[in-house]
Amino acid sequence: MRSGKVYLVGAGPGAPDLLTLRAAELLRQADIVFYDALVHPDIVQIAAHAEHVAVGKRCGKHSTAQRFINKRLVDAVRKHAHVVRLKGGDPMLFGRAQEEIAALRAAGIEFEVVPGVTSALAATAEVGVSLTQRGVARSVTFVTPRIGEGQDSNDWARAAMSADTTVIYMGLGQAEQIAEALIERGMSQSTPVVVVENASLPGHREFKLTLADLPGLASIGVAGPAVILMGDVYSDASAHAFEVVPRTRYA
Amino acid sequence: MRSGKVYLVGAGPGAPDLLTLRAAELLRQADIVFYDALVHPDIVQIAAHAEHVAVGKRCGKHSTAQRFINKRLVDAVRKHAHVVRLKGGDPMLFGRAQEEIAALRAAGIEFEVVPGVTSALAATAEVGVSLTQRGVARSVTFVTPRIGEGQDSNDWARAAMSADTTVIYMGLGQAEQIAEALIERGMSQSTPVVVVENASLPGHREFKLTLADLPGLASIGVAGPAVILMGDVYSDASAHAFEVVPRTRYA
Repeated sequence: MRSGKVYLVGAGPGAPDLLTLRAAELLRQADIVFYDALVHPDIVQIAAHAEHVAVGKRCGKHSTAQRFINKRLVDAVRKHAHVVRLKGGDPMLFGRAQEEIAALRAAGIEFEVVPGVTSALAATAEVGVSLTQRGVARSVTFVTPRIGEGQDSNDWARAAMSADTTVIYMGLGQAEQIAEALIERGMSQSTPVVVVENASLPGHREFKLTLADLPGLASIGVAGPAVILMGDVYSDASAHAFEVVPRTRYA
Repeated sequence: MRSGKVYLVGAGPGAPDLLTLRAAELLRQADIVFYDALVHPDIVQIAAHAEHVAVGKRCGKHSTAQRFINKRLVDAVRKHAHVVRLKGGDPMLFGRAQEEIAALRAAGIEFEVVPGVTSALAATAEVGVSLTQRGVARSVTFVTPRIGEGQDSNDWARAAMSADTTVIYMGLGQAEQIAEALIERGMSQSTPVVVVENASLPGHREFKLTLADLPGLASIGVAGPAVILMGDVYSDASAHAFEVVPRTRYA
């Protein structure tokens, strides 16, 4: 039986024109596109001749849904020459690509990964602050927190503590626990923090605060996808207009 | 005096079609383009109506050249409406953007940063291994080493040790010192390492090895820009065809 090829494609941080040229071309050629809920509709529409299938959950929650997506990809490539799996940001950074890759490999299906712009880069571009800076920061950690899940639950915090600049993905819903864990481990309460909601999109908002004030974000109602940026590089982010976060100093 | 706008634009990891749609559009509109040595000539050529100016050094070495670039950007924007500063990868990750941003801010010049695909994402896409993986890796550190420069010289190593997956930029010339520093600090000699040279370009090569064998790369002659990827996620990268690295086990 002949089989097509699957392209695992990064859709970038949100704005349709932050898609790569290669991704756009692959979408134009696609027979079928499986896309995550967070991918901008205008990006999906580039695949004008393709069947469009929405998959994936909004918050990165893992579930049996992943197995279902794997199966659908394998089924699709038996029928179509050109299958695109479109993921927010970059497929290889918090994109849960490995499970789909494993399923494709197990089924002997040809695939290719097309990298994308990850949301942290769009977020810090918006604020105008480089993640790395000569004399200030030569390491950056990208991490997603695991709160209260047994003995491994502090590994994310150790990683977050050890780099000069830290980016936390999918963490805003746990802002209070994140601040608590990092302060408990010795990160300064006054560590500069910038939170960017809806990076690269028209409804984007930026909040400049300190680690101690991070829990205060909960009362503002940041509903869109957000990245939390922290570290000394953000201490001079003052040229930017930020929204105000209520003070919620730790005791 | 009227002044134009400067766009600090990420050119992506190398392949011209891994440029973003926005970057391509800005190049088409550009009056003048300042580009780093590593940017693909086909990308510069998109700026068909612009003056092309090569700046920057190949190895990320800082020098008075940076001040000269800053001055040229400020001068250019007095004469041109649309100035593009094109940087390899993403401007905000090891792109030395902050010094140019500071110069533009000091001169009161409007600017915008356009994010790009950073080379680590292209490298790991090529190998087909996700930087993060459920149950294996929830943190990734991007770091550039500082070898033997006083008391701060081990900060990069601490950051590299603390994340589940580590990406080292601009480190290949110091492969031996990197392996030594990390092993000395307790990283396992058998830590899986993948080195990708010329990620996303036709001449790309991938090497699968262990941390202990990293110094052996020196004898192979990896000349192009390379990223070093390390961590348990690369233990199952065996489906890929890698080039062989001579064994150079530490004592």
